[in-house]
Amino acid sequence: MKIIRSVDEMTRWARECRGRREKLALVPTMGYFHEGHLSLMRLGGERADRLVVSLFVNPTQFGPGEDLDTYPRDFDRDRQLAEGEGVDVLFAPTPEEIYPDGFQTRVAVSGLTDHLCGADRPGHFAGVTTVVCKLFNIVRPHCAVFGEKDFQQLAVIRRMVRDLNMDVEIIGHPIVRESDGLAMSSRNAYLASEDRESALSLSRAIARARQLVAGGLTDAGLLQEEITTFILSHPVTTIDYVTLVDCRTLEPVSRIDDHTLLALAVRIRDRVRLIDNGMLVES
Amino acid sequence: MKIIRSVDEMTRWARECRGRREKLALVPTMGYFHEGHLSLMRLGGERADRLVVSLFVNPTQFGPGEDLDTYPRDFDRDRQLAEGEGVDVLFAPTPEEIYPDGFQTRVAVSGLTDHLCGADRPGHFAGVTTVVCKLFNIVRPHCAVFGEKDFQQLAVIRRMVRDLNMDVEIIGHPIVRESDGLAMSSRNAYLASEDRESALSLSRAIARARQLVAGGLTDAGLLQEEITTFILSHPVTTIDYVTLVDCRTLEPVSRIDDHTLLALAVRIRDRVRLIDNGMLVES
Repeated sequence: MKIIRSVDEMTRWARECRGRREKLALVPTMGYFHEGHLSLMRLGGERADRLVVSLFVNPTQFGPGEDLDTYPRDFDRDRQLAEGEGVDVLFAPTPEEIYPDGFQTRVAVSGLTDHLCGADRPGHFAGVTTVVCKLFNIVRPHCAVFGEKDFQQLAVIRRMVRDLNMDVEIIGHPIVRESDGLAMSSRNAYLASEDRESALSLSRAIARARQLVAGGLTDAGLLQEEITTFILSHPVTTIDYVTLVDCRTLEPVSRIDDHTLLALAVRIRDRVRLIDNGMLVES
Repeated sequence: MKIIRSVDEMTRWARECRGRREKLALVPTMGYFHEGHLSLMRLGGERADRLVVSLFVNPTQFGPGEDLDTYPRDFDRDRQLAEGEGVDVLFAPTPEEIYPDGFQTRVAVSGLTDHLCGADRPGHFAGVTTVVCKLFNIVRPHCAVFGEKDFQQLAVIRRMVRDLNMDVEIIGHPIVRESDGLAMSSRNAYLASEDRESALSLSRAIARARQLVAGGLTDAGLLQEEITTFILSHPVTTIDYVTLVDCRTLEPVSRIDDHTLLALAVRIRDRVRLIDNGMLVES
């Protein structure tokens, strides 16, 4: 596996692949790999001839007071895991490579970013779309794989790609969970073991919501109250949002149907912010 | 010459050219061609195997109360002129093709857009960078040609291309002038013949500024006063800006040097807005 630090070298390498008519897949990540990342890599590997994984903890998508400095990092472990998945290139640029002096350009999607995490984290999604636009232009992949755990991020990236006529196929991968149901996340590393039960309130809330909907409940307001109460019945939990949205527009809905997604953001001891989501009517 | 109206067809045509390893040049325009446009086309033709000219009066770069509805249009004449220059494709999409329902993405450059036209026309440059980003992704040209009359636009596009790692060479073309010195512009069509002298105040102001600088004047404030007075000495002129900037940063300067650009925006009878610019020390 090749490790590339410079944008120019990454651009050259990718151009040579395209010159050989090889299909390229890109998996953008912030590193500290878990099984979720590895399954994105496997899916990318199946869809293309060459697999590039980017590892960049993107400063512009962290807000003031967020966990940029403490975000978990372990390059050697990440390198070994990527190598184990048959990754061709691990692209790990420095912030100076991605944002050189004088950088002034921003790619932003409106509307889709007004709700959910966009409401709590102003500027977050513009940071994501700007860096993903750059990665797409540097690597020029035929396809790129993103996890559905960051459901809003995936929707925003699909919107950007469509709106800006980018020639990249965006592939979503279902949420990968621990055996107990906890959605995999690099931020799970922040969880103290005694808080595990509280962290499980998210996945259990989704299961409970599905039961209630299967039982005939269609009033989104009632279900939201139910789920809020259920999550808060777990110790040390506080709620950023419990929202029922249309999975196509991310607009809040009042009645539950086949397109309704339950999206959750919950804090554990106010410190660890976890997100999870699920469709309420299994298709 | 092929006329293409749909984004999909333009994308396919350009992809086939790249498949044949042909170099593509793009000249983005809003139509109503004059000699300035035609020289951009000639330069594009020299630099590539295939030449695409886009003709799109981009609504998002016009502000409220600006001349979107009255902007001069003559498709048949434009088609003949482009054909005469050996253009391979005239890409003339509808607004619905470029901005379909649900469009929500914006590409914006900050800093460079704070001064000059950016100050007078909020949102103008974001409209330009967004549509140019789309055109670059649709056509994927090896190079694109822009006129230096819109000096700030050229600088903003160069910044976007560098910041977003776009693989396009941006080529600037010197201002093309009428025999009397008036910078060519589609908006010159708005000028009544009796206002010609007033319109010439811009190019004459640049010539006068060069004389004063050649004569030893280095104080930007004094030169700005001189030029302002000179322009206002012409009938029916009002000034949007008379600014001396560093041509690399577009930041206003206090002392004149080899990098100083004089940028002008002047209104004739308050209705017709003309711009012009020139370096003050000929290299």
